[in-house]
Amino acid sequence: MAKRYNRLAAQGTATWIWFPGDWEIWLGNRFNNRRTERGAMFPPFWKQDSHWPTVEFSKSFVLEKEDTITIAAEGDYNLMLDGKLQFGMPRTFTVPTGEHRLALKVHNQATPPAIFIKGDTVNTNETWLATYEDKIWIDENGQAHGSGIYVPAGRWRFDDINRRPSQWRLEVEPANPTCVEEMPTGREGVQGYLADFGRETMGYVVLGGLSGSGSVEIYYGESREEALDKDHCETLDILNVEPTSVSAESDAHQNCDKEIAPHPHHGNAPCATPRPASASQLLTPEAKAFRFVYIETPLHIDSIAMLYEYLPVDEEHSGSFRCSDAELNRIWDVGARTMDLTTREFFLDGIKRDRWTWSGDAVQSYLMNYFLRFDSDCVKRTIRQLRGKDPVTAHVNTIMDYTFYWFRSMADYYLYSGDADFVREMYPRMQTLMDYCLSRTDDNGMAAGRPDDWIFVDWVDFPMHKRGVLCFEQILFCQALDTMAQCAELVGDTHQNYAALALQLWSRVKAMFWDPQAHAFLHAVEDGTMNRMITKFPNMFAIIYGYVGDDERRDIMEHVMLNPDVERITTPYMRFYELEALCMDGRQSDVIREIKDYWGGMLRAGATSFWEKYIPEEQGAQHLAMYGRPYGKSLCHAWGASPVYLLGKYILGVRPTQPGYAEYEVCPSLGTLEWVEGAVPTPFGLIRVKASAGSVTVLSDGGRGTLIAGDRRIAIEAETPITYTY
Amino acid sequence: MAKRYNRLAAQGTATWIWFPGDWEIWLGNRFNNRRTERGAMFPPFWKQDSHWPTVEFSKSFVLEKEDTITIAAEGDYNLMLDGKLQFGMPRTFTVPTGEHRLALKVHNQATPPAIFIKGDTVNTNETWLATYEDKIWIDENGQAHGSGIYVPAGRWRFDDINRRPSQWRLEVEPANPTCVEEMPTGREGVQGYLADFGRETMGYVVLGGLSGSGSVEIYYGESREEALDKDHCETLDILNVEPTSVSAESDAHQNCDKEIAPHPHHGNAPCATPRPASASQLLTPEAKAFRFVYIETPLHIDSIAMLYEYLPVDEEHSGSFRCSDAELNRIWDVGARTMDLTTREFFLDGIKRDRWTWSGDAVQSYLMNYFLRFDSDCVKRTIRQLRGKDPVTAHVNTIMDYTFYWFRSMADYYLYSGDADFVREMYPRMQTLMDYCLSRTDDNGMAAGRPDDWIFVDWVDFPMHKRGVLCFEQILFCQALDTMAQCAELVGDTHQNYAALALQLWSRVKAMFWDPQAHAFLHAVEDGTMNRMITKFPNMFAIIYGYVGDDERRDIMEHVMLNPDVERITTPYMRFYELEALCMDGRQSDVIREIKDYWGGMLRAGATSFWEKYIPEEQGAQHLAMYGRPYGKSLCHAWGASPVYLLGKYILGVRPTQPGYAEYEVCPSLGTLEWVEGAVPTPFGLIRVKASAGSVTVLSDGGRGTLIAGDRRIAIEAETPITYTY
Repeated sequence: MAKRYNRLAAQGTATWIWFPGDWEIWLGNRFNNRRTERGAMFPPFWKQDSHWPTVEFSKSFVLEKEDTITIAAEGDYNLMLDGKLQFGMPRTFTVPTGEHRLALKVHNQATPPAIFIKGDTVNTNETWLATYEDKIWIDENGQAHGSGIYVPAGRWRFDDINRRPSQWRLEVEPANPTCVEEMPTGREGVQGYLADFGRETMGYVVLGGLSGSGSVEIYYGESREEALDKDHCETLDILNVEPTSVSAESDAHQNCDKEIAPHPHHGNAPCATPRPASASQLLTPEAKAFRFVYIETPLHIDSIAMLYEYLPVDEEHSGSFRCSDAELNRIWDVGARTMDLTTREFFLDGIKRDRWTWSGDAVQSYLMNYFLRFDSDCVKRTIRQLRGKDPVTAHVNTIMDYTFYWFRSMADYYLYSGDADFVREMYPRMQTLMDYCLSRTDDNGMAAGRPDDWIFVDWVDFPMHKRGVLCFEQILFCQALDTMAQCAELVGDTHQNYAALALQLWSRVKAMFWDPQAHAFLHAVEDGTMNRMITKFPNMFAIIYGYVGDDERRDIMEHVMLNPDVERITTPYMRFYELEALCMDGRQSDVIREIKDYWGGMLRAGATSFWEKYIPEEQGAQHLAMYGRPYGKSLCHAWGASPVYLLGKYILGVRPTQPGYAEYEVCPSLGTLEWVEGAVPTPFGLIRVKASAGSVTVLSDGGRGTLIAGDRRIAIEAETPITYTY
Repeated sequence: MAKRYNRLAAQGTATWIWFPGDWEIWLGNRFNNRRTERGAMFPPFWKQDSHWPTVEFSKSFVLEKEDTITIAAEGDYNLMLDGKLQFGMPRTFTVPTGEHRLALKVHNQATPPAIFIKGDTVNTNETWLATYEDKIWIDENGQAHGSGIYVPAGRWRFDDINRRPSQWRLEVEPANPTCVEEMPTGREGVQGYLADFGRETMGYVVLGGLSGSGSVEIYYGESREEALDKDHCETLDILNVEPTSVSAESDAHQNCDKEIAPHPHHGNAPCATPRPASASQLLTPEAKAFRFVYIETPLHIDSIAMLYEYLPVDEEHSGSFRCSDAELNRIWDVGARTMDLTTREFFLDGIKRDRWTWSGDAVQSYLMNYFLRFDSDCVKRTIRQLRGKDPVTAHVNTIMDYTFYWFRSMADYYLYSGDADFVREMYPRMQTLMDYCLSRTDDNGMAAGRPDDWIFVDWVDFPMHKRGVLCFEQILFCQALDTMAQCAELVGDTHQNYAALALQLWSRVKAMFWDPQAHAFLHAVEDGTMNRMITKFPNMFAIIYGYVGDDERRDIMEHVMLNPDVERITTPYMRFYELEALCMDGRQSDVIREIKDYWGGMLRAGATSFWEKYIPEEQGAQHLAMYGRPYGKSLCHAWGASPVYLLGKYILGVRPTQPGYAEYEVCPSLGTLEWVEGAVPTPFGLIRVKASAGSVTVLSDGGRGTLIAGDRRIAIEAETPITYTY
């Protein structure tokens, strides 16, 4: 048994493999095209790529004894042993002893070509190579020549031959509404029901005990108002129930092997057993976001329930936060809930809208995730999906800033995970994306928006033009070049000059935009004219990305960030960076007050997850409107969850100083709190911190830490609790 | 009725539309991945691309009265009227009167997104626009902004709502063998049957009257030897027949609505009715190439037949050729048969092998096709498929010369068809392919082979290195640049310098490789050293592409092309160009003799279609071998059919001098023949020519022609027969 274990360890266990990134790009197409708006499909407006339809997987190895392998594939395939094609698509094959090379080509237009081979010693995993172009041709003498580019195969955790990658679905779990109200419909013979699930959620509605036939109209609302506003709610289903059976199909079927026990509510018995869909049940076809659902139907319904759809989390390897302030704890909890709801196949922006992957949103989700679930796989999936494939025909999501954030996400991921393999995987696509950026700079080497670029920055309520050369964009661009320089060094690419380009760009940005009198970076140059407007955007990024020294940082703090004459930020999106800049200036007390004020304000306004945008002065249904639509605002938006990040990084004070927390600092900052305790997930486990006035305790599962308490720097050894009292 | 006709004419009739090129690229993947070698799937070794998975189709129009349209799509779709999304996926929709814009997004990962809309006046066709990236985003006020690139939608001839593009198949037609022999198998209870279909063919084998169960082994042979050599034949099927039913499935099912009447042969009653597959019939799953099939099975079989699979041809709009030499007529007929067999979804190289699209083969097929079927659609399909999509990661088929031929195919297509729309469609992909070429030139601007380039030139039996800078490749490259310059002018692209690059390259090639003493272009420069070998390859292309004047052409003729010390060409592939060069030198008598000798030689060796390679000295089964395999040679290879081109262009003497035969020449050349007559297809119909000693008659359906007879140049008017006697 020990011997077998060793051999498996040496050769690796079997798992499904594919061309790296292809599964994510394919999954992203399913995901992003699934968005609906008032019953209409709503695909993204940028280029969508596809997996390579034919991929070769290969490995060379030496066998001490022959190995009969079992083969499964998603697609048609062939098998070549030592350059010789074998008959048909063999389900099993015996590889003789000795040195051999196995190569299998898999073709599949609809889903990514993938393969699973299991033998005693020959097993598919990341030690196999993949290529979409082997360039192996046979000359007139039968000699083979080749020059393909081979990369390590992609994989995830499909370690079972029957768990095909294309069949992967999120988990589902039954849940019941907290209450159901009968509502007058004003329509003869048509009943209305408003179900409240108590808080923001996402999943499939399950109607039980149906009888009769006709239309079932389901209106989803993140708010009660939205669900009841049939003409303006953002999402809805109108399903037709045939006289004989209820036939709506759902993706959720395939993953639900849980029985949902009958459970009484409002005198009815909600009962949802989606597989098999019985004649008396109806399951909505796609998961939707809601707290409320309003149903109108002439059919009789016994029960209303839902299947909550979610990505499983690793509770034992999750961040936590508790402190002496109950409101702050609640904010952390709602932030965590917001993150869990938006962490799905990918990190998405909001679960109602847009339900797409957005790079600017995702770069924040990743950071929050590093302090909550440390789901590196979801980070990698999202990064791969957002990047897509060559050729680059537009910025990521068509937004210039979002391209630059995409680069930043690579630097962040490497810092938190220490995963150099992923940098190596992505580096070629980083290069071609940077080539695109560099091909579009102006004569000064700056990233000026072109007519087909969307310059986002933020949703702002004040007049701020986004044309010409924005200082904000240059700072992000400079960071992207720095990231390229760092990754080039990591992968050993010496044929590039990213570091020099970054240095040159920064010196030009500083010379052009820094105004020593104003103690601020100015807004933009358009048509050769400086727009001297001062906003927080470029100034806070200069701090966060470390482009200014302490003196300039203090200047910016005083004259911009804390200056009441500078326009305030109204999205949690940019408040993320604003508060981070304040934390970096040591203003944790201010930040705690701001968090309680702003995020606490959302809670007081009834939020059960954090919002896309929040303007404290707005009242009631005003909070629901955006984009000129009464319920256009997303009430569960990942970028709303930044307290999860800020509290972990700047109150617990845990941050990596070497990739993957090989080295890290713990610098708790109580601010106005009496005590705080929590844990931060890392690649090796947790770093647990407990701090109160005069005492800090740290226990880490790994890495080499430094506890910073005032002027003292104390070494933290792995698995050794340390308490410092002062 | 007349009014309705006019309105339809004005608005166009409805047809299925897709993103231009996507259907061909998708179809190409099905096609190229269908090749098998001894029962194993054998995909190409170059990058395969995919259709865009989400495409928007749109059109703006003014309606005088409302129009209720019917909508069908291949994929999920939405419908937007004037920027407003409509509910669900409507099957019908009423567009109100007035000015409107309809936009539909279609998503389909498996097959190309396609749409069909039929109304009184609103109909999908090439007047609709397509984009894979509309870049239309909504700002916080609900305002839409966009900057997508829109191109005319792709279409073909799917004018029926029920004829979905992804369902298209070639036609099939039953055919019987000329004889069936029972063969001893040496296996107890296993019968052997060798069926001879009389000539090279392609399709599905149909076995009738089956009873029993077990394995049916089918060995295909282009020759009797190959079919009977179970261990070495290139293609085979081993099908398992279950006791209860015969269940092999086939693509052919879907297209076959013909009943195959029983017809006696060898005492059996072959009967193939593939739909529905009855319990007593077996249809092979994929079409294969063969003349002979050898079957071994323990089952009882009543009959052996086939379904011949073919692309329909337009007989009335086809080229023809008859002359006083019966052997030459037979050569033309077998050439035409070879062309018809290899003209399928695409122009392929050979029907047994490789069954792929190859650019160097296709560029010849196109030229032959212009003198045979004038199937412009198949030319465009093949050109689109070969080009694939960006990014360019390798030469076309990984072969440098094949990239250059691809450019040539664009120039040829435009010359023969006059179809500027197709040039406009392809021009962006021509540019990026040329960018790839230009990014890989050496310091001298020449196309030197890199380690990942395959330099093909020809299959040669004599030592000829293909490294460094080959003169042959530079001449092809120069032609590609000239083609770019011509197409740039056509599409109005003034931001390029292809003409200057071509001029510069040619002057360098001339200076470097032309040896006035040798009266020849020398072979190559490798590592700074000139390889002074003289081959026909660069020299004949300098003539064909018009890079040398009359004096140099005569020099090359004498010292290279007709010089017995220069290595002879042994493939019909390069004999195509060799004989064309001879024709351009006016040596039609020599060419007729060569054709009768070489192609006639193949016929005398038993060919029923022309071969991939032919060495007259070889005997018997030697003719079948290639690539180190006893039956590796393709016996039905498109590049073998060049007499179809040469006889039309240089004996009938018909050639366009302006795009699409707007102007053309007729210059018949009898050579050693007493008389010749035939027709050449053009975009407007046929040009018919009849010539004998002292008399030429021409009748053309269109264009402005010039009959050249000796020194006389006589105008030919459309639809007016002209006879010149001298």
